[in-house]
Order: sequence, then structure tokens, then C-alpha cells
Amino acid sequence: MIELVERQDKLRLPGVVEITGVSARSQSRNRPVDTDKYRWFDDAATLAEDPDVDVFVELIGGSDGPAKFAVESALKAGKHVITANKALMAKHGMALAALAEEKGVDLLFEAAVAGGIPVVRVLRDSLAGVEIKRVAGILNGTCNYLTTSMLETGRSYDEVLAEAQKLGYAEADPTLDVSGMDAAHKAAILSAIAFSADLDFSKVKVSGVDGIDLLDLKLADRLGLRIKLIAEGLLTEDGVVCRVEPMALSANHPLARVNGSLNTVRIEGDPVGAITLTGPGAGAGPTASAVMGDVAKLFRPAIRPAFGRAEHHVARPFVAAMGDETSAFFLRVRLADQPGALAALTEALAAEGVSVNQLVQDSADDSGASPVAIVTHRCPRSHMQAALTRLGKLTMLIDAPRLIRIETAS
Amino acid sequence: MIELVERQDKLRLPGVVEITGVSARSQSRNRPVDTDKYRWFDDAATLAEDPDVDVFVELIGGSDGPAKFAVESALKAGKHVITANKALMAKHGMALAALAEEKGVDLLFEAAVAGGIPVVRVLRDSLAGVEIKRVAGILNGTCNYLTTSMLETGRSYDEVLAEAQKLGYAEADPTLDVSGMDAAHKAAILSAIAFSADLDFSKVKVSGVDGIDLLDLKLADRLGLRIKLIAEGLLTEDGVVCRVEPMALSANHPLARVNGSLNTVRIEGDPVGAITLTGPGAGAGPTASAVMGDVAKLFRPAIRPAFGRAEHHVARPFVAAMGDETSAFFLRVRLADQPGALAALTEALAAEGVSVNQLVQDSADDSGASPVAIVTHRCPRSHMQAALTRLGKLTMLIDAPRLIRIETAS
Repeated sequence: MIELVERQDKLRLPGVVEITGVSARSQSRNRPVDTDKYRWFDDAATLAEDPDVDVFVELIGGSDGPAKFAVESALKAGKHVITANKALMAKHGMALAALAEEKGVDLLFEAAVAGGIPVVRVLRDSLAGVEIKRVAGILNGTCNYLTTSMLETGRSYDEVLAEAQKLGYAEADPTLDVSGMDAAHKAAILSAIAFSADLDFSKVKVSGVDGIDLLDLKLADRLGLRIKLIAEGLLTEDGVVCRVEPMALSANHPLARVNGSLNTVRIEGDPVGAITLTGPGAGAGPTASAVMGDVAKLFRPAIRPAFGRAEHHVARPFVAAMGDETSAFFLRVRLADQPGALAALTEALAAEGVSVNQLVQDSADDSGASPVAIVTHRCPRSHMQAALTRLGKLTMLIDAPRLIRIETAS
Repeated sequence: MIELVERQDKLRLPGVVEITGVSARSQSRNRPVDTDKYRWFDDAATLAEDPDVDVFVELIGGSDGPAKFAVESALKAGKHVITANKALMAKHGMALAALAEEKGVDLLFEAAVAGGIPVVRVLRDSLAGVEIKRVAGILNGTCNYLTTSMLETGRSYDEVLAEAQKLGYAEADPTLDVSGMDAAHKAAILSAIAFSADLDFSKVKVSGVDGIDLLDLKLADRLGLRIKLIAEGLLTEDGVVCRVEPMALSANHPLARVNGSLNTVRIEGDPVGAITLTGPGAGAGPTASAVMGDVAKLFRPAIRPAFGRAEHHVARPFVAAMGDETSAFFLRVRLADQPGALAALTEALAAEGVSVNQLVQDSADDSGASPVAIVTHRCPRSHMQAALTRLGKLTMLIDAPRLIRIETAS
């Protein structure tokens, strides 16, 4: 967060942000950024009330205790508040929202739900003209990692959890995650927005992955089903139902393929249909991105530039082409059915330093042309172009080669 | 759009919208909504300048001609403009944005890119605190439908195109789509936002799917690659490169699995990582949703309620549980290894009207327990609960059954 503010010249904020002060439990702890240059506050609530502060960013956590006290202090002092605290918002969101309204300040919490995925603002603002029927998703990366990994490795819940803790994918005390409570906090917040509902967390039905057995995952797999912890909010005639529980998804279900620690939210509404947002659900970077998006929202320029470029931004130019890009390529040619044709093709490539990774040759078609497709190793496009020039001179090429850039999953 | 305004009591707009007037080429054409109750304007520019109009919504299309004239007239008259016109924004967006700024009005165009997916605002506002490196996606549903369908059915480009035209997935004149031009308009707009760049459409490199051969798709498939029309904008040292061309994606690439007429945008940035948005890229409903999201943005209440609920919205309650929901279920039990155990299980289900769709039984484990998993047909949960009560009385059940709701792709 601080690191991101320090390089804000690279960002597209509508104005300039200044860090007034910093507070945390321990001043002396080693941090990736140097906090010594900022005013230090031992007490978060004192920082929240400081006259130099316009916006209080709360990243403490916990539904009660110091986080709640500091947020309330900030709101009461007429400061905008940005929080990443899902437990706080799920339990006290309505009361805090009322306090913020009373004081005429904003209470923003994009980072509280689904990390870097900007689903709060999408639901609240972009889809304000949509009648939402259902919001469902994978809102806890730890649970998704556990169920994915159990099935993939055939190991028990306890083994996989222990490994996840070692890798940092699960907390030392994983209760909040594996019980489904963390996902429930997020689902309740999304439901309140989507359905204009009075958030009442006591009504949310929660079960987690802690009772999941490898046997269940394996048998479900044999029946074409993936068991995942699904959080959902849906509109019924009686009101808003919000629940978190393991569900068995058919293999072709859009949420079934979301593996590992990713988060996904699927929003179904009329007349938009279904929109799915996928991304990193936790971590310092995604959280900082979400917080900064909320910071950006607090600027209220008289005129909002259509493409988002503020006066202090330097415009970049569009340029016609990349420099000499390196890529793997798919190359398809049709060769005349004559001896040495394939050798001539591969020699032409080799002569320009283009090496073949995979090759398939099809039997000759009615015209006697034999299609060949090649996947090259990564090479500069200039090499590939030189090879194409060489190929152009070969008489055994029936027509122009087809060249397509390859992209693999990163 | 009109239909959506007429049922705005079901939506979550921050204020009330009124249709001042309507203009189209022909007043007498049959439309799904009754336009007779609104003031009719034969000329869009006259409507745009009408003193009763605060916001002009342009859904005419075309980069020049009446759409451009009407949008310019509206902006000059100091009206906010909302447009779904990607060609207009790609070619004249910079000039129109400057005109809007000069006049102190908003120019919004969420519907111009990726239909119902709110990617314009996500990029511009939510991710304003992120350094975007690349925006890539499938931005033309027609092209994606064509390449998907060719490979699935083994038919030629011409055959699949003709069918797509019959089904309404492709225009009578498909040039704008299949040439890649439509995707290029959208990619250029996204690039301008993502990279704070001066949009210069003449620099965009465009090739389409019109040269794609079934042979290429098939050979690529054999090499584990999916050829799709990919639109991308990326930040290079020289400036912004924007291009549209067929690319070969590895089968595990996040964009490779997006089939049919869906749109997808993948945004890569620092420090958020990658966020993927998927949804309907075209159609009246998604377009109207996007336009209404822009309408919502024009309201500027003094205080923005944290959960988006304005004063005129009626709050819905959270309720503890659904009524008697109908669903298919995954049921797993462990049966004692004794004759008639499976029969007793299936009889208990049948007695409560729960019918078995699929069943797998595993060999008995060390303790002699034999795991059985069942996928039921859809039934009311109350039937399933009654069946569970019956099962609870069976002595051959080793432990408590595991019941998980099933959801299939809709």
C-alpha cells in the first residue's frame, strides 16, 4: 500500500495522495517499506482523528476490538474510511454505513471482498441498472486450494492443510478460512449490495471444508462432479438467502474449473445474463490495488475525463508495431508431394535459427498437397520473418505459409 | 433500454430517470416497447439539443454520419452523453473527450466495449491504482463463435458463417466483425484507458478470422493449441502497441476455454496480477445494462451510501433459509458389507420419492465399509431430508451420510 503510494506517478489516480501517518502494533518490525519517513502513531484511533488526515485506511482486521474502534473514531471525526476488513463489514457494516452517512463521508471496502477483483464496485455501481438474481462464487482461496489439492494429489485433508500452512496458503490458525466463515463474511457483504438488503450476518448459513473427506472428492470425481466451497446470495420471495457450503458442480460448470487459490464471482442478473470475474482473492498486492481503487474514488474532479486521464498524467503514444518480439510460432504450410520437401522446409527454418518444437504432417489432400504444421521454440520474430523469406523461394510450397503467434498460459 | 427505465423500481439507481424523448429512423417500426407515450424526434440532433434533455444516449452506431453529429450536438449543448458506439469512440474519442471536458459534461461509453462486462469502469476507476501492463481478450463474439464452431463441427468457414447469419450470431454483412475491425475498435478504447494513451486508431494492427482455414484449426488442435481472434493492448518501451489477430493459445491458457459468443477480457497489472472478466459481449440486454450503469454514474448524491442503497430503495431482509428448494443431490454413505445393504439404501430413497440418476460403489475398505455415492435426480429438499431420516434408522449405515447439493451448468 505504502509502496504503491510511493510510485503513484506510474498510476492513474485522479489526484495526488500523501501519506499523513502510519500506525501498527510495532514500529520496529522489519517491513518491505521504510516507514521512518512518516509520522508514527502508536494508536490507530489517534491517527484516525488527526486533523491532517482526510482518509483513514484500516488494514488491522478483526470484527471488533481496535479495528472497529479506529474506524468508528475516523467516521465520527468526519474522515473517509477505506477498509479491507470483511469481518467488520459483515458484522457491523450497516451501523458503520449509517454513521458514515450521518457524517457525510464515504465508507469504502473494495478490498474486503475477493481481494484484487473489483466486485464491490461492479455490483454497486456498474450493475446498478441490473436486477441481480444471484451472486455465487469461490470466495476463499485457502478452501479452494485445499479441495483442489486433495483431489489432485490424493492426500488427506490434514496432510494438504499442513502443506498449505507451510507454503503460506493457509494461516497457522486456519479456522476462519476452513470453517467457511471468511467466505460467509464476503458473501454477506455482496448480498447486501446486490439485493439492497439489510445485512444480518446471524441469518447466514455457514459450513466449511473442514468436514470434507478425500473419499467424497474422489467419488464425486468419478460421477463427473467437482466439490468446491461455494458462497452464494440469492433473491427469494421471502428475502435474501445467503449461505456458504460445499457444492458438487458438474465438470462443465463455470466455477468447476477455478482451481488453486483463485477467487471467482459469478453475477446473474436481468437483463445482463451472467458475468464472471476471476482473479487473486488475497495477498498484499491485490489488497493494495483494491485500496488504491477506493482512494481514486474519493477524488471528485469537477469534470471526469472520458478516458480517465487527469491533467497531471503524461499521455503515451500509440505505436504501430513492437520491436523484435520473441515468441513461439505456429507455422502451417502445404508442401508438394515430392521427395525432400520436408527436409527443405526444416533446413530453411534452421538456417535462420528457428528450431522446431513439434511437427505434424497430414497425408496429402486431393491436389497432392501435404499440410505440415510446426510449433517452433521461442525465437525473435525477425528470425521467423527471415525464415519465411527463405520459404518463399522454395518451389515445393504450394501456397503462402500461415504464421500465427503462440501464447502459453503464464 | 426503455424497457429497463420503465421498471427502474426494481433496479438500484441512485435516483430517478425519466425518458424525455425518443428518436430513431422510423417511428412506425414495430418495437418491443411502446414509444408512443414519449415525445418523438425525427432528428437525433434535435433531441440531443432539447432543453428538457440532461443526458443524451446514442445507440445509432457508425463512426461518422448522424451518430457523430448528434453526439457532438449534445456535447456542445452541454448535455452528458452515453454511447455504445465503439467505432465513434475509437476514431473520434479523443476529440469528443476534449469537447466534453471543455463543456464540463461526462462522456460515458461502457456499452461500447464488451457489452455487459463493465470493463471500461473497472479499468478506468477500480484499477486506477494499478500499473496495467497488458489488456488482452476475446472482444468479438461472432469471430469466437465462428472459430469455435468450425473446430467443433468440422465445417468450413463459409458454412459456419452462413449458419451464424441464419441464427443471428453474425450480421448480414459480417465484414466489420470478421475483419477484426470491431474487436480493434474495442481494444483501442481499452488501451487508451489502460495506458493513459492518446488513442490513434491508425496505428492499430488488424487482421481477422476471414482468412482462417479449418485445416489450421485442426492441425493446431492436434498440437494442443486453440486458434482464437485475440485483441490486445500492451505497454512497450516505445509506447502502446494495440493489435488484433488470430493467436494460437495453449489448451490451458485462460482464454483458450472461452467458447461460443462470450467475450472475455484479461487485465494484467502490477501489483494486482491478472483479473479476468467474462460475459455476454453483445445483445440488447447486456447493452442496456451497460448504458444504465453509466446513467447511474451521472447521479451525484452528496453522500454515497456504502452499500449503494439510496433513500428511495426499500431494504430487503436477510432470511435464514430457503423454502423447499428443488435440486439434484450428491449422497455418500458407507455401508456395512452385508447382503441387502444396497437394496435397503435405494429402497429408503425410493420410499420418499428420491430417484437415483447415477450410483458408484467402491470396494470395501479395511474396516469392511463399502462407500457408495449417488447422484439423485432433481427433487425437493424435503424429500431428501425425509429419505435421510429413513437412512438414519438403517443399521447397515456405518456413519452419517454426506449430502451435497449439485449444480449443473445453466
